[in-house]
Amino acid sequence: MRNAQQYIESLRDGREVYIHGERVEDITQHPSLRKAIDHGALDYELDKRPELRDLLVTKSPRTGNEIRRYFEMPRSAEDLLKRQELIETTTKADASWVVFMKEIGTDALNALNMICADIDKKYGTEYSARVMKYWQYLEENDLSMAGAVTDVKGDRRLRPSEQEMPYYYLKVVERRPDGVVVKGCKVHTTSSPITNELFVLPTRAMAESDRDYSIAFGIPVNTPGVKIISRPERGDLAEFDYPLSARHTTLEAMTIFEDVFVPNERIFMNGEWEFAGPLANCFATWHRFTGISYKYPFSQMMIGVSALVADYNGVPRASHIQDRITDLVIYAQCIKTFGRAAALQCIMTENGVAYPNPLLCNIGKYLFASGYHTSMKAVQEIAGGLPATGPTEADCKNPATKELIERYLGGRKGVDAISRLKVMKLIRDMGGTDGAGEWWVGTLHGEGSLQAQRMSISREYDVQTCVDYVKTLLGVK
Amino acid sequence: MRNAQQYIESLRDGREVYIHGERVEDITQHPSLRKAIDHGALDYELDKRPELRDLLVTKSPRTGNEIRRYFEMPRSAEDLLKRQELIETTTKADASWVVFMKEIGTDALNALNMICADIDKKYGTEYSARVMKYWQYLEENDLSMAGAVTDVKGDRRLRPSEQEMPYYYLKVVERRPDGVVVKGCKVHTTSSPITNELFVLPTRAMAESDRDYSIAFGIPVNTPGVKIISRPERGDLAEFDYPLSARHTTLEAMTIFEDVFVPNERIFMNGEWEFAGPLANCFATWHRFTGISYKYPFSQMMIGVSALVADYNGVPRASHIQDRITDLVIYAQCIKTFGRAAALQCIMTENGVAYPNPLLCNIGKYLFASGYHTSMKAVQEIAGGLPATGPTEADCKNPATKELIERYLGGRKGVDAISRLKVMKLIRDMGGTDGAGEWWVGTLHGEGSLQAQRMSISREYDVQTCVDYVKTLLGVK
Amino acid sequence: MRNAQQYIESLRDGREVYIHGERVEDITQHPSLRKAIDHGALDYELDKRPELRDLLVTKSPRTGNEIRRYFEMPRSAEDLLKRQELIETTTKADASWVVFMKEIGTDALNALNMICADIDKKYGTEYSARVMKYWQYLEENDLSMAGAVTDVKGDRRLRPSEQEMPYYYLKVVERRPDGVVVKGCKVHTTSSPITNELFVLPTRAMAESDRDYSIAFGIPVNTPGVKIISRPERGDLAEFDYPLSARHTTLEAMTIFEDVFVPNERIFMNGEWEFAGPLANCFATWHRFTGISYKYPFSQMMIGVSALVADYNGVPRASHIQDRITDLVIYAQCIKTFGRAAALQCIMTENGVAYPNPLLCNIGKYLFASGYHTSMKAVQEIAGGLPATGPTEADCKNPATKELIERYLGGRKGVDAISRLKVMKLIRDMGGTDGAGEWWVGTLHGEGSLQAQRMSISREYDVQTCVDYVKTLLGVK
Amino acid sequence: MRNAQQYIESLRDGREVYIHGERVEDITQHPSLRKAIDHGALDYELDKRPELRDLLVTKSPRTGNEIRRYFEMPRSAEDLLKRQELIETTTKADASWVVFMKEIGTDALNALNMICADIDKKYGTEYSARVMKYWQYLEENDLSMAGAVTDVKGDRRLRPSEQEMPYYYLKVVERRPDGVVVKGCKVHTTSSPITNELFVLPTRAMAESDRDYSIAFGIPVNTPGVKIISRPERGDLAEFDYPLSARHTTLEAMTIFEDVFVPNERIFMNGEWEFAGPLANCFATWHRFTGISYKYPFSQMMIGVSALVADYNGVPRASHIQDRITDLVIYAQCIKTFGRAAALQCIMTENGVAYPNPLLCNIGKYLFASGYHTSMKAVQEIAGGLPATGPTEADCKNPATKELIERYLGGRKGVDAISRLKVMKLIRDMGGTDGAGEWWVGTLHGEGSLQAQRMSISREYDVQTCVDYVKTLLGVK
Repeated sequence: MRNAQQYIESLRDGREVYIHGERVEDITQHPSLRKAIDHGALDYELDKRPELRDLLVTKSPRTGNEIRRYFEMPRSAEDLLKRQELIETTTKADASWVVFMKEIGTDALNALNMICADIDKKYGTEYSARVMKYWQYLEENDLSMAGAVTDVKGDRRLRPSEQEMPYYYLKVVERRPDGVVVKGCKVHTTSSPITNELFVLPTRAMAESDRDYSIAFGIPVNTPGVKIISRPERGDLAEFDYPLSARHTTLEAMTIFEDVFVPNERIFMNGEWEFAGPLANCFATWHRFTGISYKYPFSQMMIGVSALVADYNGVPRASHIQDRITDLVIYAQCIKTFGRAAALQCIMTENGVAYPNPLLCNIGKYLFASGYHTSMKAVQEIAGGLPATGPTEADCKNPATKELIERYLGGRKGVDAISRLKVMKLIRDMGGTDGAGEWWVGTLHGEGSLQAQRMSISREYDVQTCVDYVKTLLGVK
Repeated sequence: MRNAQQYIESLRDGREVYIHGERVEDITQHPSLRKAIDHGALDYELDKRPELRDLLVTKSPRTGNEIRRYFEMPRSAEDLLKRQELIETTTKADASWVVFMKEIGTDALNALNMICADIDKKYGTEYSARVMKYWQYLEENDLSMAGAVTDVKGDRRLRPSEQEMPYYYLKVVERRPDGVVVKGCKVHTTSSPITNELFVLPTRAMAESDRDYSIAFGIPVNTPGVKIISRPERGDLAEFDYPLSARHTTLEAMTIFEDVFVPNERIFMNGEWEFAGPLANCFATWHRFTGISYKYPFSQMMIGVSALVADYNGVPRASHIQDRITDLVIYAQCIKTFGRAAALQCIMTENGVAYPNPLLCNIGKYLFASGYHTSMKAVQEIAGGLPATGPTEADCKNPATKELIERYLGGRKGVDAISRLKVMKLIRDMGGTDGAGEWWVGTLHGEGSLQAQRMSISREYDVQTCVDYVKTLLGVK
Repeated sequence: MRNAQQYIESLRDGREVYIHGERVEDITQHPSLRKAIDHGALDYELDKRPELRDLLVTKSPRTGNEIRRYFEMPRSAEDLLKRQELIETTTKADASWVVFMKEIGTDALNALNMICADIDKKYGTEYSARVMKYWQYLEENDLSMAGAVTDVKGDRRLRPSEQEMPYYYLKVVERRPDGVVVKGCKVHTTSSPITNELFVLPTRAMAESDRDYSIAFGIPVNTPGVKIISRPERGDLAEFDYPLSARHTTLEAMTIFEDVFVPNERIFMNGEWEFAGPLANCFATWHRFTGISYKYPFSQMMIGVSALVADYNGVPRASHIQDRITDLVIYAQCIKTFGRAAALQCIMTENGVAYPNPLLCNIGKYLFASGYHTSMKAVQEIAGGLPATGPTEADCKNPATKELIERYLGGRKGVDAISRLKVMKLIRDMGGTDGAGEWWVGTLHGEGSLQAQRMSISREYDVQTCVDYVKTLLGVK
Repeated sequence: MRNAQQYIESLRDGREVYIHGERVEDITQHPSLRKAIDHGALDYELDKRPELRDLLVTKSPRTGNEIRRYFEMPRSAEDLLKRQELIETTTKADASWVVFMKEIGTDALNALNMICADIDKKYGTEYSARVMKYWQYLEENDLSMAGAVTDVKGDRRLRPSEQEMPYYYLKVVERRPDGVVVKGCKVHTTSSPITNELFVLPTRAMAESDRDYSIAFGIPVNTPGVKIISRPERGDLAEFDYPLSARHTTLEAMTIFEDVFVPNERIFMNGEWEFAGPLANCFATWHRFTGISYKYPFSQMMIGVSALVADYNGVPRASHIQDRITDLVIYAQCIKTFGRAAALQCIMTENGVAYPNPLLCNIGKYLFASGYHTSMKAVQEIAGGLPATGPTEADCKNPATKELIERYLGGRKGVDAISRLKVMKLIRDMGGTDGAGEWWVGTLHGEGSLQAQRMSISREYDVQTCVDYVKTLLGVK
């Protein structure tokens, strides 16, 4: 297994990354990108903590070698609970900011493993074997991975093949004996500027006419023709003022495929359009399972910071504050409980994979995403106005203002101004900064939109049994 | 084990029951009470259905005799899941209307079993042994049981001993060598008019000055001095028009204790005031576990009837209707998921009892109760106005109107008027009748008020861990 | 102007009314119908109260005679405010239960007055003159009126002319020189069993193929071929136990038109299909203005009964109770404020009619209907369980139980049991009885469904101005 | 009246302002502060637009000179509507970002004018005359004003005089013949770094022991001892990327009073502790009236940007999107309708001032603040993920990425990538940037917290009338 330094070194690979309008030659030297890299690199160091080792590291059933548990294929509810604990624990260690070095990639592996078996069965293809080989390669080299799923979509009413511009969905533009050439652009490709490998999956169900858009594969990020435009991110934030986003971030990006060649052994779907929808859905379930796993720590942070600031302000028992904290507890516990249930009520596939319960994954994700704004409102309501109006670390250091701040911003007896201001800044950074902007939007749209989850919930629940029950009760047909 | 007829016969025991202003000599002959009795009696017949027998019947670990599973003391998560399935299944068999023949009584037994051990430990009393003996008696004689918990309370700001009228909480008015004499009144005593035995528990935490109010016991319903005033209930409803409440109901009552003697062997707490709160809370948890168990079928009925009426009306895919049904699915699944989780994350007590997780029981109950009105609104919104304005069975039978109704109240092609009207009547009976009135209120206040659950949630969740996490993150104390 | 007795006498007119499966020869003698009649008759007596006379009575601009203000055509915002006050005041006088003797009929007159002008303008018809003549007839004879608008609809996806059964929407089946013959059935025809006249309006927009369904007219309720099936209603309720519904109700009905002849002078639309939608919408606005006017008293009753029961229980200042009451205040004030605003921001038509602001009417109605369930939940939450479980008036009269009830059901010092029980019964009757069932559903669907209001809101608001503002701000096209 | 340049020049007055840890000598030269200054300065230029002149300028009843309408004392509902239109219009002209040059100051003048009359009446003081003189001075010199109201509060359970640190509320530390010396600190002092004058008002009700904290006055910002620490603000944002916050902001600040002398003629309350609460409440009402006035444009922007982005994405009619836009319309219209109603139902004071209706102001403000998070969620839900993940202006300018962005980020036919990206950036800047952070928090806490408004609503509504109505209905006392 690699360490942080090895991971960082591996990113000097000639990849084509842009940020703030500039091509970055060495991404490990760019302050904004480096912040994200350091955030991700922690994942390569946590196994050094003895108390975490058993959770983070396991043995490959293939080679017997130590591998990161992310690469473990879940074969039971217990495995899924372990995966959940793994994601939750690493997120918590990284200030409740999900790491996204391996989560998405292994979500893709798990989904491909399930769907490729179906494709192979129908068409006699050998995608499963390719997936397994790639899996082993990723595992043995301890690579970090991103996923490129969401196409840019153009006119959202239209199918891929109906769009005016033919590349609004990623398209196969040339078929060669040794592979294919693709052209298009994926957005919201989390971590793609700073991972080693990149999974590409279809984002929706396809019709037969969309055959050339029905493509899935995996390639190194530095493959020629791959161009990545990272969303903006500041690298110069003071940690006092931005206790989360000064040191933590995950980068979203546009990832453009400008006639990119993909060799056959890395292609996992190629024209089997009827499996595009199932693959997109299956990946979504795995990814939403990841989502509810990494979101619990943040909801605990909401509870903790609310209770702490209420205490600092001297009003821990005020009824309207207690009400909001109880709401936050219910909110957090919904995430946690549906997360566990999705693992415990997993579906065992024919080939022995434990698949997180899709209904429960979707409800869990929906409850988190749907309730996020109201929950942040509770935190902000409890805190008062200081998160928006308080002075900065620099003000606390300037002797002319230091004393004034210390004199006036204290809380109840025993609570000093600096501690209280730190808490206020955390609340600000959770909901009122550029960094928080990633979460306001990311919670709603990461792992799919609210509407996508509602459609999945509607599809997965057995409504007919309920209808039949009522029909029997009433004696109607 | 008794059968329905034996249960019904056993109610001719001279008990003092009033309804609609009259003392009822033989409650099995009174149409309103008989409806409730027949509803309850089903519980004594369901074991005849082969597919249910394994669930409903088990063996006593003490005697090896067959007993109803209600009397099984849960010793593992699996036992709790079985208990949950038992309650859910019998409720479903009784038109989603909970039976309440043994649920509350065994909730009380389970709670007493836990708390009496603590009292005995502290005071060297022998309450546990009494509880066990009573348990065996109830189990062997297959008795039905009610619980009398909620005192009338008078001025709710005041403690029992502070009230102007000394019996606003049930009080020990005389202590004899062989027992005590109590005086007071409990309200909302579900099923007490039609069960064999009656548990009496304190409703709240007590102070030392409330010692005489800190009393728990079990007695036959026909004990001299026990007077029961049943809430009103009609016994003459047409089943077509009231598909639920014509044949199903649970009776709530005022149960008055007019100098009632309780023998020592049935007393389970007697002055140990500091255990009144724990007993009330422990019972509440067991009872809320029962609550979330019996409520899932009703939420399924909400889904089923909504999908059915939308289909009958020809608009099963209308987006605003699908939205509401998806909301109902989320609602139902919250109940189910927290119910299962409360069993799976049970707490094992020292003496080997599996105690449903209090936090999860409370959240599950709260989500059901808190979301009930909005969910019924969804059902009513989907149905349209006919549940309120449609004609009756009698109108459907009158030749002068029969044909008109059949002609005009049909739905989409293939849906006849009578079937559609039946569905409308079910929706009416779920939310717009005297019978439904029991549920609008009962859901909010049964097993404790919303506020009671919120207080429990706030108490049970480990907020401090969240605070510590934030403190560590920020480096503050 | 007629008095109550004259109104009641006028109902002995041979009309064909059914209830509970029976044809009722003299509806003034049937206890259920008589309850509704007496409820309505109050409207004919309130002008005897000196303090109300100025509000209830005005002078006809045509004849100078005294007429009921309902018949006043609103010509200014002040007139609309008066109409609002009129409806609110009579409703409040009738225990917050809207009267519906003249409200709906004059809503229809106002809408016909507006739309017939447009039809006449386009086609040279003389509908307006007919409407005015009818108006004068109704006004001079002080008649009560119902409206028949909602067709039974069959398959809701299909237009009238597309339905399998041709009379799922009311249809002209014969055209004669002196009038037309219609066949069909309207549902939710509020008060039609007990009013003198009946307005019939289209319920939706029509296409050219629906020409025979595009019909509007007014006829006496006892016109041959008109058959009315009233929804069920009990006439034997005790007032103590049902403080609202023992004496108050409005009857909904199915009104069937079995080849009913309508003379030309009462026809106000006849085939002008493109005006069916505008007429339906215009009526909806007038009727929703009526809706928000009569609903404010009920919302005040919610506040009053909540504050009263909290006081009786000794906990008027408990924070969670204050919170719910504050929510109720906001709820009530939304109704009131949008009601006033709809009048004040009325639209003046070409012919000088003050038309209530459609956007504000729809939002006001939507806020009431959409928030009703949550608001009733607040009332029920505050009250506790007694509304569902308390004893009856008969129990209070039986000497054996009277004393027990009086002893145990008192509240805080100074609050006797009977008063407290009365309040509990009111809360029960507001949300937990057959009578309340009319409101749970009626609030959602009366004056149109939530979805209907949402569509109106979306249509009426000037979104484009907002879009243009953003475009200008950003410099995009 | 001054122009923008004169206003800007006037800020070079030696004031002591800190930002980012540094004392700023000339605040007009500091990029962050200058942004706020330029934002505010627009208020001094808008009167040059002919179409706005009549609204923005009026004549002084005292001098006949032209004055800004802000200084007009409202004497009728129409005046209040004008004031509302004034605030709404200037806000809209400044990109829906409230200006805060004169709003708060004139709120203070209006409140002082009302309460000082009461103090003078009771104590024979001459505060009213002082207020009038100050008013005239401000008006004639066209000065900009801030308000310092919220004390730092320390332990929020404790009164001012109970705090451990004596200056947690602003305190009079010395009384001289010609004035007083005060010490303390106010937070959330909107615009204080960049206005000419500063109002200081008590933030809460006081007890007699808090006499030294019961002080109100007005002083120039550059008064010796006044030290202002501005919250952080960036001055280097690209307008493309931050279409709102690159050019618009209002600065919040800590304003410290380090033994500041206030001359008698500027003192408007001095120890009359029983008027501190009324003054705080009265100011809150005026300020909430301002709040609902300036917030409507932002809610329109929410509607406009949502409809625009849905159109650009090709899904303007998707039902879940239409649902959210309808919710936004209801939200916006609640603000607007309560705003107008607060003016129209104003309370006329004895001395002829039109006081905005406190109940309606509070409900309007509460509805805005309480619904803000859910409404922004709707905007973000409709937009999709691009606001969080899209590239920057710099990326659009770099030739290497420009073409890719233009190719891939287009929308439906006819919608170019740059326009679409501009809309996405606006949505980001409304809810996902440091600038937006001011609004997430400011909406909740500006003009008082949600809880403050709830308390006001509870206090202002006539609950007793509702209780009496129910009592009469039931015949209880």
